[in-house]
Amino acid sequence: MTALIGIDWGTTSFRAWRMGAGGEVLDSVGDGPGILAAAGLPGGFRQALQDRIGDWLGTAPVIASGMITSRNGWVETPYLPLPLDAAALAANLTLHEGIHFVTGAVSDPDGPAPDVMRGEETEIIGHLAGGGGDGTFVLPGTHSKWARAEGGALTGFRTVMTGEVFGALRDHTILGRLIQPGPGSEDAFRRGVEAGRQDGALLGRIFSARTLALMDRLAPDQIADYLSGLLIGDEVAQGTRDAGVPVTIIGRGDLALRYQTAFSVLGIAARIAPPGMAQRGLWEIARIGKLA
Amino acid sequence: MTALIGIDWGTTSFRAWRMGAGGEVLDSVGDGPGILAAAGLPGGFRQALQDRIGDWLGTAPVIASGMITSRNGWVETPYLPLPLDAAALAANLTLHEGIHFVTGAVSDPDGPAPDVMRGEETEIIGHLAGGGGDGTFVLPGTHSKWARAEGGALTGFRTVMTGEVFGALRDHTILGRLIQPGPGSEDAFRRGVEAGRQDGALLGRIFSARTLALMDRLAPDQIADYLSGLLIGDEVAQGTRDAGVPVTIIGRGDLALRYQTAFSVLGIAARIAPPGMAQRGLWEIARIGKLA
Repeated sequence: MTALIGIDWGTTSFRAWRMGAGGEVLDSVGDGPGILAAAGLPGGFRQALQDRIGDWLGTAPVIASGMITSRNGWVETPYLPLPLDAAALAANLTLHEGIHFVTGAVSDPDGPAPDVMRGEETEIIGHLAGGGGDGTFVLPGTHSKWARAEGGALTGFRTVMTGEVFGALRDHTILGRLIQPGPGSEDAFRRGVEAGRQDGALLGRIFSARTLALMDRLAPDQIADYLSGLLIGDEVAQGTRDAGVPVTIIGRGDLALRYQTAFSVLGIAARIAPPGMAQRGLWEIARIGKLA
Repeated sequence: MTALIGIDWGTTSFRAWRMGAGGEVLDSVGDGPGILAAAGLPGGFRQALQDRIGDWLGTAPVIASGMITSRNGWVETPYLPLPLDAAALAANLTLHEGIHFVTGAVSDPDGPAPDVMRGEETEIIGHLAGGGGDGTFVLPGTHSKWARAEGGALTGFRTVMTGEVFGALRDHTILGRLIQPGPGSEDAFRRGVEAGRQDGALLGRIFSARTLALMDRLAPDQIADYLSGLLIGDEVAQGTRDAGVPVTIIGRGDLALRYQTAFSVLGIAARIAPPGMAQRGLWEIARIGKLA
Protein backbone atom coordinates (compact mmCIF):
# COMPACT_ATOMS: atom_id res chain seq x y z
CA MET A 1 0.00 0.00 0.00
CA THR A 2 1.35 3.39 -1.01
CA ALA A 3 1.57 5.99 1.78
CA LEU A 4 3.46 8.75 0.00
CA ILE A 5 4.82 9.68 -3.42
CA GLY A 6 7.94 11.83 -3.21
CA ILE A 7 9.63 13.77 -6.03
CA ASP A 8 13.04 15.47 -6.13
CA TRP A 9 12.64 17.67 -9.20
CA GLY A 10 15.65 19.70 -10.27
CA THR A 11 16.60 21.84 -13.22
CA THR A 12 17.87 18.88 -15.21
CA SER A 13 16.80 15.89 -13.12
CA PHE A 14 13.67 14.14 -11.88
CA ARG A 15 13.65 11.37 -9.31
CA ALA A 16 10.54 9.93 -7.69
CA TRP A 17 9.78 7.35 -5.03
CA ARG A 18 6.67 5.42 -4.03
CA MET A 19 6.84 4.86 -0.27
CA GLY A 20 5.09 2.51 2.11
CA ALA A 21 3.59 3.15 5.54
CA GLY A 22 7.00 3.19 7.25
CA GLY A 23 8.63 5.40 4.64
CA GLU A 24 10.25 2.43 2.94
CA VAL A 25 10.80 2.68 -0.82
CA LEU A 26 8.43 0.41 -2.75
CA ASP A 27 9.34 1.64 -6.20
CA SER A 28 11.45 4.38 -7.76
CA VAL A 29 11.98 6.29 -11.01
CA GLY A 30 15.27 8.00 -11.72
CA ASP A 31 15.34 9.42 -15.18
CA GLY A 32 12.42 11.79 -15.63
CA PRO A 33 12.69 15.20 -17.27
CA GLY A 34 14.12 18.13 -15.33
CA ILE A 35 12.09 21.30 -15.13
CA LEU A 36 13.68 22.79 -18.24
CA ALA A 37 12.65 19.80 -20.33
CA ALA A 38 9.30 19.32 -18.61
CA ALA A 39 8.27 22.95 -19.13
CA GLY A 40 8.72 22.42 -22.85
CA LEU A 41 6.31 19.48 -23.12
CA PRO A 42 2.89 20.20 -24.69
CA GLY A 43 1.25 19.30 -21.40
CA GLY A 44 3.98 20.84 -19.28
CA PHE A 45 4.73 19.61 -15.76
CA ARG A 46 1.44 17.72 -15.49
CA GLN A 47 2.32 15.69 -18.58
CA ALA A 48 5.82 14.96 -17.28
CA LEU A 49 4.28 13.61 -14.09
CA GLN A 50 1.72 11.55 -16.00
CA ASP A 51 4.38 10.15 -18.33
CA ARG A 52 6.74 9.06 -15.58
CA ILE A 53 4.60 8.12 -12.59
CA GLY A 54 1.05 8.21 -13.97
CA ASP A 55 0.16 4.82 -12.55
CA TRP A 56 1.16 5.94 -9.03
CA LEU A 57 -0.96 9.09 -9.02
CA GLY A 58 -4.19 9.03 -7.02
CA THR A 59 -2.96 6.34 -4.65
CA ALA A 60 -1.31 8.62 -2.07
CA PRO A 61 -0.35 12.24 -1.34
CA VAL A 62 2.41 13.70 -3.53
CA ILE A 63 5.24 15.82 -2.10
CA ALA A 64 7.91 17.51 -4.23
CA SER A 65 11.07 19.52 -3.57
CA GLY A 66 13.76 21.17 -5.69
CA MET A 67 13.93 23.82 -8.37
CA ILE A 68 10.35 22.90 -9.29
CA THR A 69 9.34 25.71 -6.85
CA SER A 70 11.54 28.33 -8.54
CA ARG A 71 10.48 31.05 -10.94
CA ASN A 72 10.91 28.64 -13.85
CA GLY A 73 9.16 25.80 -12.08
CA TRP A 74 5.55 24.73 -11.59
CA VAL A 75 4.79 27.14 -8.77
CA GLU A 76 7.07 29.78 -7.27
CA THR A 77 7.16 29.67 -3.49
CA PRO A 78 8.85 32.09 -1.07
CA TYR A 79 12.17 31.16 0.54
CA LEU A 80 12.22 30.42 4.28
CA PRO A 81 14.81 32.04 6.56
CA LEU A 82 17.41 30.26 8.69
CA PRO A 83 17.57 28.49 11.05
CA LEU A 84 15.31 26.03 9.25
CA ASP A 85 14.17 22.59 10.36
CA ALA A 86 11.77 19.91 9.16
CA ALA A 87 8.89 21.34 11.19
CA ALA A 88 9.21 24.75 9.52
CA LEU A 89 9.33 23.13 6.09
CA ALA A 90 6.28 21.01 6.94
CA ALA A 91 4.40 24.07 8.17
CA ASN A 92 5.08 25.91 4.92
CA LEU A 93 4.13 23.35 2.30
CA THR A 94 2.38 24.87 -0.73
CA LEU A 95 -0.53 22.86 -2.11
CA HIS A 96 -0.81 23.47 -5.85
CA GLU A 97 -2.63 21.27 -8.38
CA GLY A 98 -2.84 18.53 -5.80
CA ILE A 99 0.86 18.44 -5.00
CA HIS A 100 2.49 19.51 -1.74
CA PHE A 101 5.56 21.56 -2.62
CA VAL A 102 8.48 21.96 -0.20
CA THR A 103 9.94 25.44 -0.51
CA GLY A 104 13.60 26.51 -0.40
CA ALA A 105 15.81 28.45 1.98
CA VAL A 106 17.47 31.86 1.94
CA SER A 107 20.69 32.74 3.73
CA ASP A 108 21.70 36.27 4.74
CA PRO A 109 18.93 37.93 2.65
CA ASP A 110 19.93 41.50 3.55
CA GLY A 111 23.70 40.98 3.70
CA PRO A 112 26.33 41.46 1.03
CA ALA A 113 26.10 37.91 -0.33
CA PRO A 114 22.55 36.58 -0.03
CA ASP A 115 22.17 32.97 -1.09
CA VAL A 116 19.40 30.56 -1.88
CA MET A 117 18.77 26.85 -2.25
CA ARG A 118 15.86 24.69 -3.38
CA GLY A 119 16.07 20.95 -2.84
CA GLU A 120 19.31 20.61 -0.89
CA GLU A 121 17.52 21.60 2.34
CA THR A 122 15.38 18.47 1.95
CA GLU A 123 18.45 16.25 1.51
CA ILE A 124 20.03 17.69 4.65
CA ILE A 125 16.75 17.17 6.54
CA GLY A 126 16.86 13.58 5.33
CA HIS A 127 20.35 13.19 6.75
CA LEU A 128 19.34 14.68 10.11
CA ALA A 129 16.17 12.60 10.26
CA GLY A 130 18.24 9.47 9.70
CA GLY A 131 20.28 10.24 12.80
CA GLY A 132 23.24 11.61 10.88
CA GLY A 133 23.72 14.50 13.26
CA ASP A 134 24.94 18.09 12.92
CA GLY A 135 28.05 19.23 11.07
CA THR A 136 29.16 20.51 7.70
CA PHE A 137 27.52 19.26 4.51
CA VAL A 138 28.89 19.47 1.00
CA LEU A 139 26.57 18.79 -1.92
CA PRO A 140 28.84 18.79 -5.00
CA GLY A 141 27.51 19.77 -8.38
CA THR A 142 27.35 22.43 -11.06
CA HIS A 143 26.65 24.73 -8.16
CA SER A 144 27.97 23.08 -5.00
CA LYS A 145 26.26 23.85 -1.73
CA TRP A 146 28.12 24.06 1.56
CA ALA A 147 25.77 23.95 4.51
CA ARG A 148 25.95 23.83 8.28
CA ALA A 149 23.50 22.17 10.65
CA GLU A 150 23.33 22.85 14.37
CA GLY A 151 20.76 21.55 16.82
CA GLY A 152 18.99 19.61 14.10
CA ALA A 153 18.40 22.70 11.94
CA LEU A 154 20.00 24.20 8.85
CA THR A 155 21.84 27.31 10.11
CA GLY A 156 23.91 28.52 7.17
CA PHE A 157 24.91 27.74 3.60
CA ARG A 158 26.77 29.06 0.61
CA THR A 159 26.68 28.28 -3.10
CA VAL A 160 30.03 27.65 -4.78
CA MET A 161 30.04 27.65 -8.59
CA THR A 162 32.90 25.17 -8.97
CA GLY A 163 31.33 22.83 -11.52
CA GLU A 164 30.05 25.53 -13.82
CA VAL A 165 33.28 27.54 -13.62
CA PHE A 166 35.24 24.39 -14.46
CA GLY A 167 33.15 23.91 -17.60
CA ALA A 168 33.52 27.55 -18.64
CA LEU A 169 37.29 27.50 -18.14
CA ARG A 170 37.72 24.19 -19.95
CA ASP A 171 35.48 25.03 -22.90
CA HIS A 172 35.88 28.79 -23.26
CA THR A 173 39.38 29.87 -22.19
CA ILE A 174 42.95 29.24 -23.26
CA LEU A 175 43.23 26.61 -20.50
CA GLY A 176 41.22 24.19 -22.61
CA ARG A 177 43.28 24.46 -25.78
CA LEU A 178 45.91 21.92 -24.79
CA ILE A 179 43.52 19.46 -23.15
CA GLN A 180 43.28 15.97 -24.60
CA PRO A 181 40.82 13.40 -23.29
CA GLY A 182 42.26 10.61 -21.18
CA PRO A 183 41.42 7.74 -18.88
CA GLY A 184 41.34 10.00 -15.81
CA SER A 185 44.31 10.60 -13.55
CA GLU A 186 43.94 10.67 -9.78
CA ASP A 187 47.57 11.76 -9.55
CA ALA A 188 46.89 14.85 -11.67
CA PHE A 189 43.75 15.56 -9.65
CA ARG A 190 45.73 15.40 -6.40
CA ARG A 191 48.42 17.70 -7.83
CA GLY A 192 45.65 20.14 -8.68
CA VAL A 193 44.22 19.97 -5.17
CA GLU A 194 47.67 20.71 -3.74
CA ALA A 195 47.95 23.75 -6.03
CA GLY A 196 44.43 24.95 -5.36
CA ARG A 197 44.63 24.74 -1.58
CA GLN A 198 47.56 27.15 -1.44
CA ASP A 199 46.46 30.69 -0.96
CA GLY A 200 43.09 31.61 -2.41
CA ALA A 201 44.65 33.47 -5.35
CA LEU A 202 42.68 31.32 -7.75
CA LEU A 203 42.64 33.66 -10.78
CA GLY A 204 46.42 33.41 -10.87
CA ARG A 205 46.85 29.81 -9.81
CA ILE A 206 44.70 28.40 -12.62
CA PHE A 207 47.23 29.62 -15.21
CA SER A 208 49.53 26.81 -14.04
CA ALA A 209 47.22 24.40 -15.90
CA ARG A 210 48.67 25.96 -19.05
CA THR A 211 52.27 26.65 -18.08
CA LEU A 212 52.87 23.19 -16.61
CA ALA A 213 51.57 21.68 -19.85
CA LEU A 214 53.67 24.02 -22.01
CA MET A 215 56.72 22.93 -20.02
CA ASP A 216 55.91 19.23 -20.48
CA ARG A 217 55.38 18.81 -16.75
CA LEU A 218 51.70 17.93 -17.20
CA ALA A 219 50.50 15.57 -19.94
CA PRO A 220 47.75 16.84 -22.26
CA ASP A 221 45.41 14.08 -21.05
CA GLN A 222 45.99 15.12 -17.42
CA ILE A 223 45.21 18.83 -17.72
CA ALA A 224 41.47 18.49 -17.16
CA ASP A 225 41.94 16.43 -13.98
CA TYR A 226 44.57 18.87 -12.73
CA LEU A 227 42.26 21.83 -13.35
CA SER A 228 39.36 20.00 -11.70
CA GLY A 229 41.56 19.35 -8.68
CA LEU A 230 42.71 22.94 -8.59
CA LEU A 231 39.16 24.28 -8.43
CA ILE A 232 37.87 21.67 -5.98
CA GLY A 233 41.03 22.12 -3.88
CA ASP A 234 40.34 25.85 -3.68
CA GLU A 235 36.69 25.22 -2.82
CA VAL A 236 37.50 22.72 -0.09
CA ALA A 237 40.36 24.75 1.40
CA GLN A 238 38.22 27.90 1.52
CA GLY A 239 35.13 26.06 2.69
CA THR A 240 36.80 24.29 5.59
CA ARG A 241 38.52 27.37 7.02
CA ASP A 242 35.68 27.87 9.47
CA ALA A 243 33.64 24.71 9.00
CA GLY A 244 32.55 22.47 11.81
CA VAL A 245 33.10 18.72 11.86
CA PRO A 246 32.11 16.13 10.93
CA VAL A 247 32.01 16.75 7.19
CA THR A 248 29.45 14.83 5.17
CA ILE A 249 29.36 14.72 1.38
CA ILE A 250 25.85 14.28 0.01
CA GLY A 251 26.33 13.19 -3.56
CA ARG A 252 26.95 10.27 -5.82
CA GLY A 253 29.49 8.59 -8.01
CA ASP A 254 32.76 9.95 -9.26
CA LEU A 255 32.09 13.52 -8.17
CA ALA A 256 31.49 12.57 -4.52
CA LEU A 257 34.68 10.52 -4.59
CA ARG A 258 36.63 13.46 -6.02
CA TYR A 259 35.52 15.63 -3.14
CA GLN A 260 36.40 12.93 -0.64
CA THR A 261 39.86 12.72 -2.19
CA ALA A 262 40.26 16.50 -2.00
CA PHE A 263 39.36 16.46 1.67
CA SER A 264 41.83 13.66 2.30
CA VAL A 265 44.64 15.67 0.62
CA LEU A 266 43.85 18.41 3.13
CA GLY A 267 43.97 15.91 5.97
CA ILE A 268 40.24 15.98 6.66
CA ALA A 269 38.12 12.85 6.91
CA ALA A 270 34.85 13.35 5.04
CA ARG A 271 32.22 10.66 4.84
CA ILE A 272 29.88 10.15 1.89
CA ALA A 273 26.25 9.96 2.99
CA PRO A 274 24.35 6.84 1.97
CA PRO A 275 22.05 7.33 -1.05
CA GLY A 276 18.44 8.29 -0.54
CA MET A 277 18.75 11.52 1.45
CA ALA A 278 16.17 13.38 -0.69
CA GLN A 279 13.61 10.58 -0.33
CA ARG A 280 14.29 10.36 3.40
CA GLY A 281 13.83 14.12 3.78
CA LEU A 282 10.58 14.16 1.82
CA TRP A 283 9.26 11.41 4.06
CA GLU A 284 10.26 13.30 7.20
CA ILE A 285 8.62 16.55 6.09
CA ALA A 286 5.47 14.71 4.99
CA ARG A 287 5.34 12.81 8.28
CA ILE A 288 5.61 15.97 10.38
CA GLY A 289 3.09 17.66 8.06
CA LYS A 290 0.74 14.71 8.65
CA LEU A 291 0.55 13.87 4.94
CA ALA A 292 1.81 10.37 5.62
CA MET B 1 66.98 60.53 -39.47
CA THR B 2 65.75 57.20 -38.19
CA ALA B 3 67.90 55.50 -35.54
CA LEU B 4 65.66 52.61 -34.58
CA ILE B 5 62.38 50.96 -35.52
CA GLY B 6 60.64 49.31 -32.56
CA ILE B 7 57.70 46.90 -32.62
CA ASP B 8 55.49 45.66 -29.79
CA TRP B 9 53.82 42.66 -31.44
CA GLY B 10 51.25 40.81 -29.41
CA THR B 11 48.73 38.06 -30.02
CA THR B 12 46.06 40.49 -31.19
CA SER B 13 47.94 43.79 -31.43
CA PHE B 14 50.77 45.44 -33.38
CA ARG B 15 52.29 48.78 -32.50
CA ALA B 16 55.43 50.25 -34.09
CA TRP B 17 57.54 53.35 -33.62
CA ARG B 18 60.17 55.08 -35.74
CA MET B 19 62.68 56.66 -33.37
CA GLY B 20 65.33 59.35 -33.72
CA ALA B 21 68.90 59.48 -32.44
CA GLY B 22 67.80 60.31 -28.88
CA GLY B 23 65.07 57.69 -28.77
CA GLU B 24 62.37 60.26 -29.51
CA VAL B 25 59.32 59.06 -31.45
CA LEU B 26 59.29 60.42 -35.02
CA ASP B 27 56.31 58.41 -36.21
CA SER B 28 54.08 55.63 -34.97
CA VAL B 29 51.61 52.98 -36.13
CA GLY B 30 49.05 51.55 -33.76
CA ASP B 31 46.68 49.24 -35.55
CA GLY B 32 48.64 46.53 -37.31
CA PRO B 33 47.69 42.86 -37.24
CA GLY B 34 48.46 40.77 -34.18
CA ILE B 35 50.37 37.55 -34.66
CA LEU B 36 47.23 35.45 -35.09
CA ALA B 37 46.06 37.64 -37.99
CA ALA B 38 49.55 38.17 -39.43
CA ALA B 39 50.30 34.45 -39.52
CA GLY B 40 47.25 33.99 -41.73
CA LEU B 41 48.36 36.45 -44.41
CA PRO B 42 49.65 34.94 -47.68
CA GLY B 43 53.04 36.50 -47.02
CA GLY B 44 52.89 35.92 -43.28
CA PHE B 45 54.74 38.12 -40.80
CA ARG B 46 56.95 39.62 -43.52
CA GLN B 47 53.90 40.83 -45.42
CA ALA B 48 52.35 42.29 -42.26
CA LEU B 49 55.53 44.25 -41.68
CA GLN B 50 55.68 45.41 -45.29
CA ASP B 51 52.00 46.44 -45.26
CA ARG B 52 52.23 48.49 -42.10
CA ILE B 53 55.74 49.95 -41.98
CA GLY B 54 57.18 49.05 -45.39
CA ASP B 55 58.41 52.57 -46.03
CA TRP B 56 60.40 52.59 -42.77
CA LEU B 57 62.23 49.33 -43.43
CA GLY B 58 65.84 49.53 -44.47
CA THR B 59 66.40 52.89 -42.84
CA ALA B 60 67.43 51.61 -39.39
CA PRO B 61 67.72 48.47 -37.23
CA VAL B 62 64.44 46.81 -36.24
CA ILE B 63 63.79 45.49 -32.73
CA ALA B 64 60.61 43.61 -31.72
CA SER B 65 59.16 42.25 -28.48
CA GLY B 66 56.01 40.43 -27.45
CA MET B 67 54.28 37.18 -28.32
CA ILE B 68 55.95 37.37 -31.74
CA THR B 69 58.72 35.24 -30.14
CA SER B 70 56.32 32.55 -28.94
CA ARG B 71 55.62 29.16 -30.49
CA ASN B 72 52.96 30.71 -32.70
CA GLY B 73 55.10 33.73 -33.62
CA TRP B 74 57.79 34.46 -36.18
CA VAL B 75 60.62 32.81 -34.27
CA GLU B 76 60.45 30.97 -30.94
CA THR B 77 63.11 32.11 -28.50
CA PRO B 78 63.96 30.65 -25.07
CA TYR B 79 62.76 32.37 -21.92
CA LEU B 80 65.32 34.09 -19.68
CA PRO B 81 65.38 33.45 -15.93
CA LEU B 82 64.94 36.03 -13.17
CA PRO B 83 66.31 38.39 -12.03
CA LEU B 84 66.25 39.99 -15.47
CA ASP B 85 67.45 43.45 -16.50
CA ALA B 86 67.90 45.39 -19.73
CA ALA B 87 71.51 44.23 -20.11
CA ALA B 88 70.49 40.57 -20.03
CA LEU B 89 67.74 41.18 -22.58
CA ALA B 90 70.20 43.09 -24.80
CA ALA B 91 72.75 40.27 -24.54
CA ASN B 92 70.14 37.72 -25.64
CA LEU B 93 68.59 39.33 -28.68
CA THR B 94 67.81 36.87 -31.47
CA LEU B 95 68.55 38.08 -35.00
CA HIS B 96 66.10 36.46 -37.41
CA GLU B 97 65.29 37.66 -40.94
CA GLY B 98 66.96 40.96 -40.19
CA ILE B 99 64.99 41.69 -37.03
CA HIS B 100 66.35 41.74 -33.48
CA PHE B 101 63.87 39.89 -31.28
CA VAL B 102 63.65 40.51 -27.53
CA THR B 103 62.85 37.28 -25.74
CA GLY B 104 60.55 36.73 -22.75
CA ALA B 105 60.99 35.76 -19.10
CA VAL B 106 60.23 32.69 -17.02
CA SER B 107 59.42 32.71 -13.32
CA ASP B 108 59.88 29.72 -11.00
CA PRO B 109 60.45 27.24 -13.87
CA ASP B 110 60.85 24.20 -11.62
CA GLY B 111 58.32 25.20 -8.95
CA PRO B 112 54.66 24.32 -8.63
CA ALA B 113 53.42 27.32 -10.62
CA PRO B 114 55.89 28.26 -13.34
CA ASP B 115 54.96 31.36 -15.26
CA VAL B 116 56.00 33.14 -18.43
CA MET B 117 55.72 36.53 -20.10
CA ARG B 118 56.63 37.93 -23.50
CA GLY B 119 56.44 41.66 -24.01
CA GLU B 120 55.59 42.90 -20.53
CA GLU B 121 59.26 42.63 -19.48
CA THR B 122 60.07 45.25 -22.11
CA GLU B 123 57.39 47.61 -20.78
CA ILE B 124 58.75 47.27 -17.25
CA ILE B 125 62.29 47.90 -18.54
CA GLY B 126 60.91 51.01 -20.19
CA HIS B 127 59.49 52.18 -16.89
CA LEU B 128 62.76 51.54 -15.07
CA ALA B 129 64.81 53.20 -17.81
CA GLY B 130 62.63 56.27 -17.51
CA GLY B 131 63.56 56.62 -13.84
CA GLY B 132 60.32 55.15 -12.59
CA GLY B 133 62.03 53.07 -9.94
CA ASP B 134 61.38 49.71 -8.33
CA GLY B 135 58.07 48.50 -6.95
CA THR B 136 55.04 46.49 -7.98
CA PHE B 137 53.72 46.62 -11.52
CA VAL B 138 50.27 45.63 -12.71
CA LEU B 139 49.66 45.22 -16.44
CA PRO B 140 45.90 44.66 -16.77
CA GLY B 141 44.46 42.66 -19.62
CA THR B 142 42.96 39.37 -20.74
CA HIS B 143 45.82 37.88 -18.78
CA SER B 144 46.98 40.46 -16.25
CA LYS B 145 50.61 40.41 -15.19
CA TRP B 146 51.74 41.31 -11.69
CA ALA B 147 55.47 41.93 -11.51
CA ARG B 148 58.04 43.08 -9.00
CA ALA B 149 61.22 45.02 -9.71
CA GLU B 150 64.10 45.36 -7.27
CA GLY B 151 67.48 46.96 -7.92
CA GLY B 152 66.47 47.84 -11.45
CA ALA B 153 65.70 44.25 -12.42
CA LEU B 154 62.55 42.17 -12.84
CA THR B 155 62.58 39.76 -9.87
CA GLY B 156 59.19 38.07 -9.94
CA PHE B 157 55.85 37.94 -11.69
CA ARG B 158 52.58 36.11 -11.92
CA THR B 159 49.87 35.85 -14.57
CA VAL B 160 46.29 36.39 -13.39
CA MET B 161 43.54 35.38 -15.81
CA THR B 162 41.03 37.98 -14.67
CA GLY B 163 39.98 39.36 -18.06
CA GLU B 164 39.51 36.00 -19.72
CA VAL B 165 37.69 34.52 -16.71
CA PHE B 166 35.37 37.54 -16.67
CA GLY B 167 34.48 36.91 -20.31
CA ALA B 168 33.91 33.20 -19.74
CA LEU B 169 31.69 33.82 -16.71
CA ARG B 170 29.70 36.54 -18.45
CA ASP B 171 29.20 34.69 -21.72
CA HIS B 172 29.11 31.04 -20.65
CA THR B 173 27.63 30.71 -17.14
CA ILE B 174 24.35 31.46 -15.41
CA LEU B 175 25.83 34.75 -14.16
CA GLY B 176 25.41 36.27 -17.60
CA ARG B 177 21.73 35.38 -18.06
CA LEU B 178 20.34 38.40 -16.23
CA ILE B 179 22.88 40.92 -17.57
CA GLN B 180 21.58 43.84 -19.62
CA PRO B 181 23.91 46.36 -21.25
CA GLY B 182 24.13 49.75 -19.60
CA PRO B 183 26.03 53.00 -19.52
CA GLY B 184 28.54 51.66 -17.00
CA SER B 185 28.22 52.04 -13.25
CA GLU B 186 31.20 52.95 -11.09
CA ASP B 187 29.02 52.40 -8.04
CA ALA B 188 28.32 48.80 -9.06
CA PHE B 189 32.00 48.28 -9.84
CA ARG B 190 32.97 49.55 -6.38
CA ARG B 191 30.38 47.28 -4.75
CA GLY B 192 31.93 44.38 -6.63
CA VAL B 193 35.42 45.31 -5.46
CA GLU B 194 34.20 45.40 -1.85
CA ALA B 195 32.72 41.93 -2.30
CA GLY B 196 35.75 40.54 -4.10
CA ARG B 197 38.31 41.78 -1.59
CA GLN B 198 36.70 39.84 1.26
CA ASP B 199 38.24 36.46 1.74
CA GLY B 200 39.57 34.82 -1.38
CA ALA B 201 36.60 32.44 -1.63
CA LEU B 202 35.95 33.60 -5.17
CA LEU B 203 34.09 30.54 -6.49
CA GLY B 204 31.41 31.20 -3.90
CA ARG B 205 31.47 34.98 -3.87
CA ILE B 206 30.71 35.32 -7.60
CA PHE B 207 27.28 33.76 -7.08
CA SER B 208 26.21 37.04 -5.44
CA ALA B 209 26.17 38.57 -8.95
CA ARG B 210 23.10 36.41 -9.49
CA THR B 211 21.42 36.42 -6.09
CA LEU B 212 21.65 40.20 -5.64
CA ALA B 213 20.03 40.62 -9.06
CA LEU B 214 17.32 38.05 -8.29
CA MET B 215 16.53 39.99 -5.11
CA ASP B 216 16.33 43.30 -6.99
CA ARG B 217 19.33 44.64 -5.12
CA LEU B 218 21.41 44.93 -8.27
CA ALA B 219 19.97 46.30 -11.53
CA PRO B 220 20.32 44.15 -14.67
CA ASP B 221 22.47 46.83 -16.33
CA GLN B 222 24.82 46.88 -13.31
CA ILE B 223 25.56 43.17 -13.05
CA ALA B 224 28.48 43.22 -15.50
CA ASP B 225 30.21 46.08 -13.67
CA TYR B 226 29.61 44.38 -10.32
CA LEU B 227 31.08 41.12 -11.60
CA SER B 228 34.04 42.97 -13.12
CA GLY B 229 34.64 44.67 -9.78
CA LEU B 230 34.35 41.39 -7.94
CA LEU B 231 37.04 39.72 -10.04
CA ILE B 232 39.37 42.74 -10.11
CA GLY B 233 38.81 43.24 -6.38
CA ASP B 234 39.85 39.65 -5.73
CA GLU B 235 42.88 40.05 -7.99
CA VAL B 236 44.00 43.27 -6.34
CA ALA B 237 43.38 42.07 -2.78
CA GLN B 238 45.29 38.84 -3.40
CA GLY B 239 48.04 40.56 -5.38
CA THR B 240 48.78 43.22 -2.78
CA ARG B 241 48.96 40.86 0.18
CA ASP B 242 52.73 40.69 -0.14
CA ALA B 243 53.41 43.35 -2.76
CA GLY B 244 55.93 46.14 -2.35
CA VAL B 245 55.13 49.79 -2.95
CA PRO B 246 54.83 51.90 -4.94
CA VAL B 247 52.28 50.29 -7.24
CA THR B 248 52.35 51.27 -10.91
CA ILE B 249 49.66 50.34 -13.42
CA ILE B 250 51.02 49.97 -16.94
CA GLY B 251 47.98 50.11 -19.17
CA ARG B 252 45.58 52.36 -20.94
CA GLY B 253 42.06 53.69 -20.96
CA ASP B 254 39.10 52.43 -19.02
CA LEU B 255 40.77 49.23 -17.85
CA ALA B 256 43.70 51.05 -16.21
CA LEU B 257 41.22 53.39 -14.50
CA ARG B 258 39.21 50.42 -13.21
CA TYR B 259 42.32 48.98 -11.60
CA GLN B 260 43.20 52.35 -10.11
CA THR B 261 39.68 52.54 -8.65
CA ALA B 262 40.00 49.03 -7.23
CA PHE B 263 43.28 49.94 -5.53
CA SER B 264 41.69 53.08 -4.10
CA VAL B 265 38.82 51.05 -2.61
CA LEU B 266 41.50 49.00 -0.85
CA GLY B 267 43.17 52.18 0.38
CA ILE B 268 46.21 51.84 -1.85
CA ALA B 269 47.46 54.67 -4.07
CA ALA B 270 48.40 53.29 -7.49
CA ARG B 271 49.74 55.50 -10.26
CA ILE B 272 49.14 54.90 -13.94
CA ALA B 273 52.38 54.96 -15.92
CA PRO B 274 52.56 57.43 -18.80
CA PRO B 275 52.02 55.88 -22.24
CA GLY B 276 54.98 54.67 -24.27
CA MET B 277 56.57 52.16 -21.90
CA ALA B 278 57.03 49.50 -24.61
CA GLN B 279 58.70 51.97 -26.98
CA ARG B 280 60.90 53.26 -24.17
CA GLY B 281 61.92 49.72 -23.24
CA LEU B 282 62.74 48.76 -26.81
CA TRP B 283 64.95 51.85 -27.09
CA GLU B 284 66.75 51.01 -23.84
CA ILE B 285 67.44 47.41 -24.86
CA ALA B 286 68.61 48.50 -28.32
CA ARG B 287 70.84 51.19 -26.83
CA ILE B 288 72.54 48.77 -24.44
CA GLY B 289 72.80 46.24 -27.26
CA LYS B 290 74.48 48.93 -29.40
CA LEU B 291 71.84 48.71 -32.13
CA ALA B 292 71.05 52.41 -31.73
